[in-house]
Amino acid sequence: MTRTLNQPLGGDTMPRTGGPGTMMRLPAAESAAGLDACFLGIPMDIGTSNRPGTRLGPRQIRDESRMIRPYNMATGAAPFDHLQVADIGDVPINLYDLKKSVEIIAQHYREVLSHDAIPLTLGGDHTLTWPILRAMAAKHGPVALIHVDAHSDTNDTMFGEKVAHGCPFRRAWEEGCLINDKVFQIGLRGSGYSREEFDWGRKQGWSCIQAEECWHKSLTPLMAEIREKIGNAPVYLSYDIDSLDPAFAPGTGTVEVGGLTTMQGLEIIRGTAGLNLVGGDLVEVSPPYDPTGNTAVIAANFLFEMLCALPGVSRLR
Amino acid sequence: MTRTLNQPLGGDTMPRTGGPGTMMRLPAAESAAGLDACFLGIPMDIGTSNRPGTRLGPRQIRDESRMIRPYNMATGAAPFDHLQVADIGDVPINLYDLKKSVEIIAQHYREVLSHDAIPLTLGGDHTLTWPILRAMAAKHGPVALIHVDAHSDTNDTMFGEKVAHGCPFRRAWEEGCLINDKVFQIGLRGSGYSREEFDWGRKQGWSCIQAEECWHKSLTPLMAEIREKIGNAPVYLSYDIDSLDPAFAPGTGTVEVGGLTTMQGLEIIRGTAGLNLVGGDLVEVSPPYDPTGNTAVIAANFLFEMLCALPGVSRLR
Amino acid sequence: MTRTLNQPLGGDTMPRTGGPGTMMRLPAAESAAGLDACFLGIPMDIGTSNRPGTRLGPRQIRDESRMIRPYNMATGAAPFDHLQVADIGDVPINLYDLKKSVEIIAQHYREVLSHDAIPLTLGGDHTLTWPILRAMAAKHGPVALIHVDAHSDTNDTMFGEKVAHGCPFRRAWEEGCLINDKVFQIGLRGSGYSREEFDWGRKQGWSCIQAEECWHKSLTPLMAEIREKIGNAPVYLSYDIDSLDPAFAPGTGTVEVGGLTTMQGLEIIRGTAGLNLVGGDLVEVSPPYDPTGNTAVIAANFLFEMLCALPGVSRLR
Amino acid sequence: MTRTLNQPLGGDTMPRTGGPGTMMRLPAAESAAGLDACFLGIPMDIGTSNRPGTRLGPRQIRDESRMIRPYNMATGAAPFDHLQVADIGDVPINLYDLKKSVEIIAQHYREVLSHDAIPLTLGGDHTLTWPILRAMAAKHGPVALIHVDAHSDTNDTMFGEKVAHGCPFRRAWEEGCLINDKVFQIGLRGSGYSREEFDWGRKQGWSCIQAEECWHKSLTPLMAEIREKIGNAPVYLSYDIDSLDPAFAPGTGTVEVGGLTTMQGLEIIRGTAGLNLVGGDLVEVSPPYDPTGNTAVIAANFLFEMLCALPGVSRLR
Amino acid sequence: MTRTLNQPLGGDTMPRTGGPGTMMRLPAAESAAGLDACFLGIPMDIGTSNRPGTRLGPRQIRDESRMIRPYNMATGAAPFDHLQVADIGDVPINLYDLKKSVEIIAQHYREVLSHDAIPLTLGGDHTLTWPILRAMAAKHGPVALIHVDAHSDTNDTMFGEKVAHGCPFRRAWEEGCLINDKVFQIGLRGSGYSREEFDWGRKQGWSCIQAEECWHKSLTPLMAEIREKIGNAPVYLSYDIDSLDPAFAPGTGTVEVGGLTTMQGLEIIRGTAGLNLVGGDLVEVSPPYDPTGNTAVIAANFLFEMLCALPGVSRLR
Amino acid sequence: MTRTLNQPLGGDTMPRTGGPGTMMRLPAAESAAGLDACFLGIPMDIGTSNRPGTRLGPRQIRDESRMIRPYNMATGAAPFDHLQVADIGDVPINLYDLKKSVEIIAQHYREVLSHDAIPLTLGGDHTLTWPILRAMAAKHGPVALIHVDAHSDTNDTMFGEKVAHGCPFRRAWEEGCLINDKVFQIGLRGSGYSREEFDWGRKQGWSCIQAEECWHKSLTPLMAEIREKIGNAPVYLSYDIDSLDPAFAPGTGTVEVGGLTTMQGLEIIRGTAGLNLVGGDLVEVSPPYDPTGNTAVIAANFLFEMLCALPGVSRLR
Ligand SMILES: [Mn+2]
Ligand SMILES: [Mn+2]
Ligand SMILES: [Mn+2]
Ligand SMILES: [Mn+2]
Ligand SMILES: [Mn+2]
Ligand SMILES: [Mn+2]
Ligand SMILES: [Mn+2]
Ligand SMILES: [Mn+2]
Ligand SMILES: [Mn+2]
Ligand SMILES: [Mn+2]
Ligand SMILES: [Mn+2]
Ligand SMILES: [Mn+2]
Repeated sequence: MTRTLNQPLGGDTMPRTGGPGTMMRLPAAESAAGLDACFLGIPMDIGTSNRPGTRLGPRQIRDESRMIRPYNMATGAAPFDHLQVADIGDVPINLYDLKKSVEIIAQHYREVLSHDAIPLTLGGDHTLTWPILRAMAAKHGPVALIHVDAHSDTNDTMFGEKVAHGCPFRRAWEEGCLINDKVFQIGLRGSGYSREEFDWGRKQGWSCIQAEECWHKSLTPLMAEIREKIGNAPVYLSYDIDSLDPAFAPGTGTVEVGGLTTMQGLEIIRGTAGLNLVGGDLVEVSPPYDPTGNTAVIAANFLFEMLCALPGVSRLR
Repeated sequence: MTRTLNQPLGGDTMPRTGGPGTMMRLPAAESAAGLDACFLGIPMDIGTSNRPGTRLGPRQIRDESRMIRPYNMATGAAPFDHLQVADIGDVPINLYDLKKSVEIIAQHYREVLSHDAIPLTLGGDHTLTWPILRAMAAKHGPVALIHVDAHSDTNDTMFGEKVAHGCPFRRAWEEGCLINDKVFQIGLRGSGYSREEFDWGRKQGWSCIQAEECWHKSLTPLMAEIREKIGNAPVYLSYDIDSLDPAFAPGTGTVEVGGLTTMQGLEIIRGTAGLNLVGGDLVEVSPPYDPTGNTAVIAANFLFEMLCALPGVSRLR
Repeated sequence: MTRTLNQPLGGDTMPRTGGPGTMMRLPAAESAAGLDACFLGIPMDIGTSNRPGTRLGPRQIRDESRMIRPYNMATGAAPFDHLQVADIGDVPINLYDLKKSVEIIAQHYREVLSHDAIPLTLGGDHTLTWPILRAMAAKHGPVALIHVDAHSDTNDTMFGEKVAHGCPFRRAWEEGCLINDKVFQIGLRGSGYSREEFDWGRKQGWSCIQAEECWHKSLTPLMAEIREKIGNAPVYLSYDIDSLDPAFAPGTGTVEVGGLTTMQGLEIIRGTAGLNLVGGDLVEVSPPYDPTGNTAVIAANFLFEMLCALPGVSRLR
Repeated sequence: MTRTLNQPLGGDTMPRTGGPGTMMRLPAAESAAGLDACFLGIPMDIGTSNRPGTRLGPRQIRDESRMIRPYNMATGAAPFDHLQVADIGDVPINLYDLKKSVEIIAQHYREVLSHDAIPLTLGGDHTLTWPILRAMAAKHGPVALIHVDAHSDTNDTMFGEKVAHGCPFRRAWEEGCLINDKVFQIGLRGSGYSREEFDWGRKQGWSCIQAEECWHKSLTPLMAEIREKIGNAPVYLSYDIDSLDPAFAPGTGTVEVGGLTTMQGLEIIRGTAGLNLVGGDLVEVSPPYDPTGNTAVIAANFLFEMLCALPGVSRLR
Repeated sequence: MTRTLNQPLGGDTMPRTGGPGTMMRLPAAESAAGLDACFLGIPMDIGTSNRPGTRLGPRQIRDESRMIRPYNMATGAAPFDHLQVADIGDVPINLYDLKKSVEIIAQHYREVLSHDAIPLTLGGDHTLTWPILRAMAAKHGPVALIHVDAHSDTNDTMFGEKVAHGCPFRRAWEEGCLINDKVFQIGLRGSGYSREEFDWGRKQGWSCIQAEECWHKSLTPLMAEIREKIGNAPVYLSYDIDSLDPAFAPGTGTVEVGGLTTMQGLEIIRGTAGLNLVGGDLVEVSPPYDPTGNTAVIAANFLFEMLCALPGVSRLR
Repeated sequence: MTRTLNQPLGGDTMPRTGGPGTMMRLPAAESAAGLDACFLGIPMDIGTSNRPGTRLGPRQIRDESRMIRPYNMATGAAPFDHLQVADIGDVPINLYDLKKSVEIIAQHYREVLSHDAIPLTLGGDHTLTWPILRAMAAKHGPVALIHVDAHSDTNDTMFGEKVAHGCPFRRAWEEGCLINDKVFQIGLRGSGYSREEFDWGRKQGWSCIQAEECWHKSLTPLMAEIREKIGNAPVYLSYDIDSLDPAFAPGTGTVEVGGLTTMQGLEIIRGTAGLNLVGGDLVEVSPPYDPTGNTAVIAANFLFEMLCALPGVSRLR
């Protein structure tokens, strides 16, 4: 017995600027039941410390995903030939209470994971990764983590609060969601509250690769090392768009100079192929800061690249 | 036996910036079957003479409709208490051949009208009104027309072509789609190719109200006159957003100075309540020329006001 | 003994685009001590339901206030000849907890009011008016209210929460901060959750003037009526920039079509001269939605007009 | 013997977005020789006190003039049936020395006027009107003046300097270029350095009509009065785009709230028909503050309306 | 006998923001007669599949070319010391019929080529390269091709149509315009309709260099290879601005992540010096998606670099 | 005896979008007395040749500096642990007379330098470096210079004028302010008025490193060489933001393609650590050309990096 796999609506069927406002113009689904992977959004920005706007991220990412065709020309990946994928909509967070939103998200992802679908999340500010990791750990036990970001997001508190977009990985660590010797932070840079700030993660056994170590070169070798170190562990990929230099991704809220290029970003995500990816997110896209939509174009493509890297997807290269 | 009427997704269920990318966050439907009224989009701009961009109109109008709540506070209209309404998606026009697109549209609306649903169209450039009127006349016979626009759109040709956004009402007139003494053009202004240009319509018996006649006053009395003259005839409402002054609606392609205000636009649409409206469109929103989205906010609200003015909708005032 | 009154830094002393980033380039002050009136900001947007951005409002309003000169050419008001005025900076709200921010604001205004300075607030989302009114009532007892807004902001809850930018006047009413027969809401319009929504205020004895009642005319007569009805009561003026039509004020988050003009806004504020004004705010300016800064120019001028309308300011007309 | 009159390049010959970058896509000319009227630009902003950008005004006005067709539908004016008109390019001002630029402009206009062509100027900041008026007076003697502006531009000095965009009419007055009882300033408003600021002009016998006197009504009666008072005197029309409310004309540098509408602007310019117009300018368009180009669309149309109002142009109405 | 060579208007003669709206402020010419090379525009976007706007490309490229001075500091090229160059305006395409526009373009270039001038084209969408190549082959026989693009543009059809911006090189190939073993496509990437999509060209003997092969390195060695392979054949250079990463060139319609840098773009164009270049184009600049104009600045400079690489231009390096 | 060192206002004390509009939210100071280093602004753009706007640079740089925290994570520099730093406001230049402004600036810096504080200047157009260098030479004698720029800024005149943003280093050279064999220009590129243009500096003994020499590699080795050559000489660092490729820094006026990356910019500034830096500036940020503010974010960070590189600041690396 065969099942029909969902396909993105093609440009020969409907002009690219028409059709449903879903991710890649895929069919919408009510839940993750029956899916191998799913896209879902979290329209949140109340965990943000500087410029707001990520609450509009999921809508703009979906809108700008409209031109992505089903095959990956760099890797030959053919995700829609192998996986049942749909867009399952947004998490109904509470815009007026961040702490309650964390609980709503955690509960929502427990439900998604109960269907054995791999969630690829359209953010939203980075606070959301904490409740997702909690749900991940509840299902898989502690997970390996590839965290691409300008910031370590390991503050104990911000303005005295435990819940904010600068704290999710500290919280996840406290709750034992992470396999500490399999945590990789890539792209860290900028200024800090203490000059040893990035050493906190290192003290936990994490690998913290600063942006300066990445300049002027390919990150493909780095990813080979990381794959080697992670092995078969379940791994979560959290991609903060501000890891990219603002030249590439202007539409975000906490901009740091001297970041990664999109070429390096693609190398990182493509470099996760072969790992046991159990989920991924793309966070911190703030549409008001990029009216061209190009930051969202990157985000949409990076999410597609995550899909292409999932277990079970065939590749040519 | 009762039916359940579709309702827009509310802000207490999902943040305004989340939820489906449909008009007013209404349910999507595959066809107009079972609907009293429907929203649908035509992502077209290849009939445009100056600035392009209206191919992106339907998506932005839907996006910016996200804040509209179900009740009209000015008129007390409660459309979702009385009509079954859904968003039936977009017309798959041929972006590379304008003439073929006209046929695609005409055929599409014949299908919609076969279900007795009243179509409210999200444009798209004004070329689209010609094939819609053709479908309207096929169902209803010639119709009365309220056409709000800076331009008369009655050119015989543009660059030698019969199909362009400056010609739809000439074509519809040639095909006998209009009841000539029940045609009203409101908001005409600007410069022209002949100084008697607006007199062409007048020669056909049309009422052509220039923008200058509208300045500094309410249009409510004008609408009373128009309702009187139209009586019970089936009437189509075609609203070109460039009828508004660019202060109100910057996001459009063929801008003319000294136009209507949105207050007057609301008076016009609210003034159609009581008529036998058989369809309406809102055209010429060009998102690249209003990155704030406010022109689309107007468009979305004007389409909601059209819905509120349809036969069968109760009102308080 | 005389005191030296603060003056805005003039254009003959420093180019308009230089100088301190304070309101009107006035001196900064540490507290309200010794001041007759003060400007202060609340960089908050976490009470917002749709587009964010008002956390950047105070900075942009101050920036765009740089061109305001000390005399009001319409009224001849000379505020800096009579009042000691300074910019006392911002309220350090908690960006990650809206309910705590409400307490911070209330406490901050109690301190300001202890110095008998009249606070003019640069918002910030409208949630902030609730704690300000609480502080006002603590000092003055219940106050009269002139509330200019597209929205009544009298929801009992939003997404189940009592604290949000759609609820401040319901909360203030619950706490007895308002003199119900001296409450005036001007500019209400748009769509609602119930078609009787604006009647809630009316049931409390409030005067709710819908935008449609204001179209095409001067509001000077309305203000004469309002002054008559308020008499000598202490009165607070809360000005939501979205009361203006988006043509005038695009830079805001919850846009409603068919609003007031800035001419009418000026008539309203100038029409409060002669009242016993005890405070005022200008809220809901969202800079990312108006990169030109013109919405903030309006906001800055409206705050200057409030200053010109305060008791003790001489006028020519 | 007949001459062939230049015509704007039409949309049936070349798409509106193509063709020469001249005003209205008219032929370019090397000088004003043989012309009845001419358009010319002054790419200057170094006289500006707040936001810069008007140096780019002439280019954007020309670009956005591309859609203007040869006939005026409101008045029936047919300028190209009667006048030889061309675009004679730009004045080569010295960007690094404002005072030298004034001399360059004065000399340039003496040359233009030597051909008896009526110059219609695309600004540029308002400083430029002083040297133009000097050239006008050299040819015609003192002239009547219709000056539409938010500002009186009659400062004696700015930052101690006699040459700046806030001083041109003071300088022209000093040089005896104006017929004082035939000077009309329309649209004055905002804040000032002295509360009697606008009275300076009144003391010279000028009519200074503040914006507040213009609100909510047609200015056609005012123009009838002004025509009556000016009679047959040579009259110069200087139109500062900031006379318009920023809702209409956001793209300018010294924004004042509560201004004229474009409808009123059109009434003013159309109301000069019948006068002995000897020249006109449209100044203070700052393209960086209106990337949509709509402010320039207004400017281009207002310059076309000036052309339509010139002596010798036939009208229907 | 000597001829006077046209020179760009210099900044010491006219401010950069003034002067004629021609390419590099060169003289305009009515035709290519007497020219060695010419710039001309094609204001077209009706072959576009996603975002529109390239119809405005030629105007913005010309506008932003205003700062280019006559000498190339990197190569020492001195094109205006050796070639007679002018701007010959725009091709009057039919905006409402893409297929007719193709014929208009082909005919127009046959005329240009009849004068032995090398055309450098300001696009416009990529559809235009097909009719240009047809005219090139009619004059020169099949040509070598250097095609820089994110896309191969070798679709057989789009939406069932043979004429669209994704098909020009398939059409040119069908018509035998190309020397298949001298075709080089550089920068291909993104997603596709088939995972072997780029292999189509390879099957024809073309060299298809994917973007990933270009990352993190100089393309100067690649160009040396290409020059070697092309030898003395006539070669056409078609430069799609979307070959660049959107960080560099945001103003385009079909954005693909992970592209070339402008440094590499310069290396490519400079690397064509020494070849027998017979023409070149720069396509797909969409001004509404880059209001800063910087994408057009790149385009203008790349066209200047093409001019500098033409046969007969002396160089220092 | 200890002194209390000023600290930037932290994000745990005040939301990042609130607080004073000073550089890094540092305390403001009336003068440089008692300071080791100071930030100050020059709101000037009247020396600009193409796009204006740098008069708004200091305000936007200060605004966007709001997120910089006190420690440099790349170098471990801790400037506020060692230096007394404040923001001393803006230089009151004369906007209407460039030559007088030069004198005002020179005088202002003489006063600053009299306090032995190191000035870090927020520009403003590049003309300002001439008077600063004059003051520097008055205090220190001729200085070494690291000048990062797309342009050599060594024109003798522009439009016949000696004072303009293309001439400051020619003027400084004429006045003997520079140690010619210790002058380094980095990033030169684009087009020129003569193909030997960059050789002028070389003839004076300057090192002129063209952008092409910098592509695709780290500039850390170059900086080691430069430090070696400069030795202990007093050195001034003048950083023109247009040295960066416009992908990184779109918000500037005289854009040249193919520039430095911000990574290279950071390497340059960090590479000055260990030198005897006596002052620095960051010029040519034009806010209207980058409404996102990201160009100003770079500028703010580069100024912070200059502070981190000053003598007396401890580093970890
Ligand atoms: Mn993060
Ligand atoms: Mn981050
Ligand atoms: Mn129309
Ligand atoms: Mn129209
Ligand atoms: Mn409100
Ligand atoms: Mn409101
Ligand atoms: Mn003026
Ligand atoms: Mn003015
Ligand atoms: Mn292409
Ligand atoms: Mn392409
Ligand atoms: Mn420079
Ligand atoms: Mn430079």
